[in-house]
Amino acid sequence: MKFAKIPMATINRLSVYSRTLEELLENEVEVISSEKLAKLCGVNPAQIRKDLAYFGEFGVRGVGYRVKDLMLQIKEILGLNKTWNLGLVGVGNLGSALIRHANFMKQGYQFVAALDVNPQKIGTTLPNGLVIDDFKDFERVVKERDVHIGVVATPASAAQTVANQLIIAGINGILNFAPVQLQVPECCRVENVDFTIKLDNLAYHLSTSED
Amino acid sequence: MKFAKIPMATINRLSVYSRTLEELLENEVEVISSEKLAKLCGVNPAQIRKDLAYFGEFGVRGVGYRVKDLMLQIKEILGLNKTWNLGLVGVGNLGSALIRHANFMKQGYQFVAALDVNPQKIGTTLPNGLVIDDFKDFERVVKERDVHIGVVATPASAAQTVANQLIIAGINGILNFAPVQLQVPECCRVENVDFTIKLDNLAYHLSTSED
Repeated sequence: MKFAKIPMATINRLSVYSRTLEELLENEVEVISSEKLAKLCGVNPAQIRKDLAYFGEFGVRGVGYRVKDLMLQIKEILGLNKTWNLGLVGVGNLGSALIRHANFMKQGYQFVAALDVNPQKIGTTLPNGLVIDDFKDFERVVKERDVHIGVVATPASAAQTVANQLIIAGINGILNFAPVQLQVPECCRVENVDFTIKLDNLAYHLSTSED
Repeated sequence: MKFAKIPMATINRLSVYSRTLEELLENEVEVISSEKLAKLCGVNPAQIRKDLAYFGEFGVRGVGYRVKDLMLQIKEILGLNKTWNLGLVGVGNLGSALIRHANFMKQGYQFVAALDVNPQKIGTTLPNGLVIDDFKDFERVVKERDVHIGVVATPASAAQTVANQLIIAGINGILNFAPVQLQVPECCRVENVDFTIKLDNLAYHLSTSED
């Protein structure tokens, strides 16, 4: 599906709406007003309407949104009407925690591969049943298990080399946990999860509000 | 220190600049051109100059930036010229991985408390030497150890209750790993680390570029 150029902030919010609607559905809520949905998502109602307007008409005047319909439509927009296969590179503390993170599967993502360079880790079995593969077999593993997204949880010093290998293996989407800016070609998209940037934000907020 | 209203995107980038400069310093680079620094940070040189212009004059014409000076100045702007004390709530897989994450300390953050509600965890010692406290003692622990920032790594269902308690205990900055939008008063700032929103971004990118 192709739409006009959608701001990344809108895509981020759609993701929040979709998750909130999922929760509502679990609690058997069938219909919700845009005001109430907005409050749960931490935005204002006009924002929701504006975000959804990129993709067509949603909601019923005077009634609100049908929770299940809207959730399915947003999931289709985001490409979440399929399961995305993740390949983890770097099975350290953080990598292991990610593999055990229950939320991924619920959201349509599953780890199908875990790779490391440490001979002591290669061949061992993770709690989810995955056996850790040797990173040097990455290209084969990607093909065999149809990995869509690479999850980089290596030390910063290894991350660029790993990213280069992922791209050679045909991976165009990388979730990067290493605290380093990866240089990638235009076809590839990197999303960085950097805790310290978020902490710096908080530190800045706390220092400026203290004065 | 107080400046004109600075866009959050600028604060985020300052954090990236600071980290990149730190790495350069470790590699004994003393001076860097704005072009080179921009490339390493994944932005364009005009962006760096614009971001820094909020805070005054930096850099030497024809020479570039003195790495150490610029790093120290950015750290002062961000409030990173002190160590920030973190209190972790929820010592599950993710929480434990965060405690062991070497990068926090390097960036000026240290965990001074770890709390949980699970009686089997309370009283046990973490690899960094911290003993897990009972969450019901949170208010006392916050005061005694001067916790500045609360790190929430509980299940989604517990996160709002935890946030309420943090705010009562006087915490105004929360790093939230739970996949839920926390409702907090204006004085409090929440930064969300949500892996699935990042993954949704990648999924959207991959689905739209496939067509």
